Amino acid sequence: MKNDIPLFDAIYTQRALRRFNNDPISDSVVEKLIEAATKAPSGSNKQQWGFVVVRDHGTRERIGAYYLRAWTEVFGHGSNTLSPRIKASAEHLGHHMADAPVLVFACIPHLGTSNLTLGASIYPAVQNFLLAARAMGIGSVLTTLHKRYEVEIKELLNIPDNVETVALLPLGYPADGEGYGPTRRRPVSEVIHWEKWTSETYS
Amino acid sequence: MKNDIPLFDAIYTQRALRRFNNDPISDSVVEKLIEAATKAPSGSNKQQWGFVVVRDHGTRERIGAYYLRAWTEVFGHGSNTLSPRIKASAEHLGHHMADAPVLVFACIPHLGTSNLTLGASIYPAVQNFLLAARAMGIGSVLTTLHKRYEVEIKELLNIPDNVETVALLPLGYPADGEGYGPTRRRPVSEVIHWEKWTSETYS
Repeated sequence: MKNDIPLFDAIYTQRALRRFNNDPISDSVVEKLIEAATKAPSGSNKQQWGFVVVRDHGTRERIGAYYLRAWTEVFGHGSNTLSPRIKASAEHLGHHMADAPVLVFACIPHLGTSNLTLGASIYPAVQNFLLAARAMGIGSVLTTLHKRYEVEIKELLNIPDNVETVALLPLGYPADGEGYGPTRRRPVSEVIHWEKWTSETYS
Repeated sequence: MKNDIPLFDAIYTQRALRRFNNDPISDSVVEKLIEAATKAPSGSNKQQWGFVVVRDHGTRERIGAYYLRAWTEVFGHGSNTLSPRIKASAEHLGHHMADAPVLVFACIPHLGTSNLTLGASIYPAVQNFLLAARAMGIGSVLTTLHKRYEVEIKELLNIPDNVETVALLPLGYPADGEGYGPTRRRPVSEVIHWEKWTSETYS
């Protein structure tokens, strides 16, 4: 299909993009990304996902205000664990979430048992969404800071009580100077444990 | 690279494979899959993942016994929500987990806050792993049933107290008659909510 790229190219050049230009994202592009998401595995193949797509400017402004409050609470006080490059980029997004032309919330019903393992039924779909965006040259990033205002955002978007948001995924075409490319990561030898875990505690 | 395929082909033909033949999986293949995993996003790019790779036959047998117990407890009593095709396949895996030549546990430290959102820092990596396996023609499936014996399995594999397993990923070359191909999923129109959630409860 159009805009397809090799899988390993997509995986090895996916990175968080947080600065977007003003070009609109078409509904058909959003549908394509969400279709890719739905091809992911989920527990017992139940596919209990939902994706709220926010294009309305006023709603984006309100979400952006919550996101900025969350950003400021978590990262606004100087000391934090982000690298300088990531911090500058994340700070930009903190102030400009509403400028992304489309905001997508990935959601899943928790049915009384919200826990880590439930993520196995929604975050693989989120990763498909992000890889598809990368292949199509559309910027995005997996954010969860908005969870500090989960109650308010669910009310704003009419999300039912038994459904939880798991990611806020802004979409936009990359701003000048922003783009996909190779990433650096911890070497595989540091994260593989052959046969048994090789240290007494996590490190 | 060798064994690369287009991203959308990988996404649209990834499916759970649970029947494997006896061909060994080389360590370099395992390393490649885990390298692909490490290219995924994680919260604040902390990359706090670990992958325990079990090749030892005796250890696989013990894990397989726990897995069979978990399978029997959850799905062994007749009524359940699996389709007949998935049930037959999953039942096979329930009895034959130890026959997969390699078992990989994806892990993450929980640092006191194990919850749904923590999954954002590990399940995208798991999905990269599964897509890479699909591209390389290696069978796998995302399973979490083993979590019923999390304590016992962590002890067996020397996994530290502050680290949680999030997925058991068997690896093997597909058995005759088993293979990747197009999947059916709920239509996108059912899972997209434009601007606001469109029903009062999850359905």
